[in-house]
Amino acid sequence: EKGNPAAQPLLSVHDQNMQWPQGWVGKEEIVMLLYPGFTALDLFGPHHFFVLMMGAKVHLVAKTMEPVLTDTGIRVTPTMTFADCPEKPTVFFVPGGTGGTLDAAKDEVIRKFVEERGGSADYITSVCTGSVLLGAAGLLKGYKATSHWITRDLLSEFGAIPVDQRVVVDRNRITGAGVTSGLDFGLKLVQDLRNQQYAEAVQLFAEYDPQPPIDKGSQSKASPDISGLLMHMHEPFRQMVRDLR
Amino acid sequence: EKGNPAAQPLLSVHDQNMQWPQGWVGKEEIVMLLYPGFTALDLFGPHHFFVLMMGAKVHLVAKTMEPVLTDTGIRVTPTMTFADCPEKPTVFFVPGGTGGTLDAAKDEVIRKFVEERGGSADYITSVCTGSVLLGAAGLLKGYKATSHWITRDLLSEFGAIPVDQRVVVDRNRITGAGVTSGLDFGLKLVQDLRNQQYAEAVQLFAEYDPQPPIDKGSQSKASPDISGLLMHMHEPFRQMVRDLR
Repeated sequence: EKGNPAAQPLLSVHDQNMQWPQGWVGKEEIVMLLYPGFTALDLFGPHHFFVLMMGAKVHLVAKTMEPVLTDTGIRVTPTMTFADCPEKPTVFFVPGGTGGTLDAAKDEVIRKFVEERGGSADYITSVCTGSVLLGAAGLLKGYKATSHWITRDLLSEFGAIPVDQRVVVDRNRITGAGVTSGLDFGLKLVQDLRNQQYAEAVQLFAEYDPQPPIDKGSQSKASPDISGLLMHMHEPFRQMVRDLR
Repeated sequence: EKGNPAAQPLLSVHDQNMQWPQGWVGKEEIVMLLYPGFTALDLFGPHHFFVLMMGAKVHLVAKTMEPVLTDTGIRVTPTMTFADCPEKPTVFFVPGGTGGTLDAAKDEVIRKFVEERGGSADYITSVCTGSVLLGAAGLLKGYKATSHWITRDLLSEFGAIPVDQRVVVDRNRITGAGVTSGLDFGLKLVQDLRNQQYAEAVQLFAEYDPQPPIDKGSQSKASPDISGLLMHMHEPFRQMVRDLR
């Protein structure tokens, strides 16, 4: 359990002599981008599902090895720099954020990294406004995609086709809606990358049987007063997204 | 947006002259425990909901300020040490894990901190096997509580009454089931700490309208083959939990 606990957490306390069912162990290379100001849960939701794939390597990749400050005050230490990142990841993942996401889109080094390493991945993916960064890097042109409901329609600024759906799959682009959609997105990817039985085991081990105490989690279900206020609060941000073009 | 982005992320791009609806700004002191080997998403799920409470202070508290290695390989930097922790937190929260949680329960300094600071909080809370640590610190005696389905029944070892429910509230003890229950738990606390309108705004902003692509997320829904295998894998861990007593 010491050393590198990232490798196989499902195995952390298991009988080493067990036989695994066929298809349970893989070798995906999963690259998750860290940049200053990303939203922590955008990344940690799918991360949890990815690390439950036995044998998969999950990398937290940033410009340098310095801890990265998220927009909710958590500092997260990268596991790898851009320079050491696998050339052709199985999955390239971009989390969202607000000001930090715009700064990342304007940062030549980060945008180029997203364009090149993202562009060469088997799956090009995001959650929340991560799709704004994918769009700014030119990776969503002609693809259906989604984003946080506040920015979803703006994906058309980058040549994407906005879709009002929690997880949108168009060929090898898989994008999630607002932050908590990362759990649905993560499980969907496990289902695509492994077999159904394995995905069911991951869902059970993560006890992902959501029962929100309130049912106002999407724009169509929420009170127009509340969604209108949140939209109004983010008008300046929406303008800054448009200005990225 | 620079400086301390933890304070009010909902406000990060808003009009500073806005009037907030009554009851939208509070001053909770929320203490979230970090220890080596905790499960990242156990903490980051509720953390996201807590930081969306405008005015709340959310602290990541550990023995020292060194980055803490989670059981999924993420290193997280604390924001505060035990020594600087508020005397009477509004919420005291303990995440779960496997071997790390047992080590924390056996660590005199950590257990005493949980017992004392946890014991003096308005709400004493956990997600996943965090309840094992609360139990080992003597804080669940005579209380209904839950845990990850693999360890739930073992809470009786610590004098608690195990309940098969995603979020269990008994007086000021609020415990969540396996890792992803932290989102339901977090939203429930926002609902308790603020008003209904605010909780609805937080749910919408987090776009928490879950739509898992599979529906096998609890023991009662899962295939007995899969739940049996996972339970078998964790028998040694279950024994180590019993040995904590």
